[in-house]
Amino acid sequence: MRGVFITFEGGDGSGKSTQVRRLAAALEAAGADVLVLREPGGTPVGESVREILLGPSHETMTPEAEFLLFAASRAELTLSVIAPALEAGRVVIDDRHADSSLAYQGYGRGLPLETVRAINAFATGGLVPDCTIVLDIEPAVGIAAATGTAADRLEREDIAFHERVRAGFLAIAEAEPERVKVVPRGDVDTVWRDVVTALAPVLSRAGIELESR
Amino acid sequence: MRGVFITFEGGDGSGKSTQVRRLAAALEAAGADVLVLREPGGTPVGESVREILLGPSHETMTPEAEFLLFAASRAELTLSVIAPALEAGRVVIDDRHADSSLAYQGYGRGLPLETVRAINAFATGGLVPDCTIVLDIEPAVGIAAATGTAADRLEREDIAFHERVRAGFLAIAEAEPERVKVVPRGDVDTVWRDVVTALAPVLSRAGIELESR
Repeated sequence: MRGVFITFEGGDGSGKSTQVRRLAAALEAAGADVLVLREPGGTPVGESVREILLGPSHETMTPEAEFLLFAASRAELTLSVIAPALEAGRVVIDDRHADSSLAYQGYGRGLPLETVRAINAFATGGLVPDCTIVLDIEPAVGIAAATGTAADRLEREDIAFHERVRAGFLAIAEAEPERVKVVPRGDVDTVWRDVVTALAPVLSRAGIELESR
Repeated sequence: MRGVFITFEGGDGSGKSTQVRRLAAALEAAGADVLVLREPGGTPVGESVREILLGPSHETMTPEAEFLLFAASRAELTLSVIAPALEAGRVVIDDRHADSSLAYQGYGRGLPLETVRAINAFATGGLVPDCTIVLDIEPAVGIAAATGTAADRLEREDIAFHERVRAGFLAIAEAEPERVKVVPRGDVDTVWRDVVTALAPVLSRAGIELESR
């Protein structure tokens, strides 16, 4: 039986990491074979690309190069790790995936959306998540939460950029309501309940039931 | 006045570096403002990508990720270095460019040629060389010349791969005979005379005359 592919998206400081950890623990408790990944990263190539993209040594970069680096990391992860894991029936949770490029490099940086979609499709071999959770947050709030420590290249962009990214995620959700579920900001337990509700249909098809408490 | 964009392509061991150096020296002697570049590389991002692609630490990599990494390096170099240099009227010589991806990742690895062309066009902003020199060499001869020291990931591929790459370069030249000139293997001085002859029309349009001796 094919596995389940779940991605988490949203602005910085939206609490993705917390929800990803909680979901992984709940799925494992329910007996699922879970694989947790993040982008960029997750493979030797991807982790090297992550250093280029998010490390401090490359201050300026063209939007085109930035996107192609994210796409390279995504291709390596999707084709060599995610696709085989799904074939093996595992539940794959990816912290950021193709929709992040559409939101950040497309809506945020202004690269043509059709080109971003086409290169995403090439990088993923056409694989699309079964369910994508967008954790929605006002950029002013999220950035404040995210930059407690060192901010990376994307986090340091101005609020107008992050407003475009947020609008991008919401536009993606509006265009694909079956796949993409928006969860509004709230306390950790409220968000968790919304996440479980949003995932219930795809998990149920895989024979997995989660408690939302 | 817009500058001149010249690229050198061809298999490993075809003598590109020697001809690139000789051309740069001859152009400078003729009073041209010359910029010599190589791919992958030529920018901070590109040199980091070069380490991933050609260094020993990433033995296996999907063809898709490999191509997207080359494209990322190409985008950064083309948009942030080559295009401004051409605007400033300089002569840019690039040791490998977009045609290498079409030959190696397209013809060699089997990625769809149309996709490689489309992503190349995105990475270069549609900029195309004024003249491309393909230094043609039988793979068995070229590989023997190139692997005197440590072979990189692409050089270590088998002869059948390099035969496909060579056929790719020849197909590109056949499809675009105005832009792409094939120079057959020969001693260094003979090849140099052929290179000068091939470049004469585009250099002449820029008011540059080279002696082929």
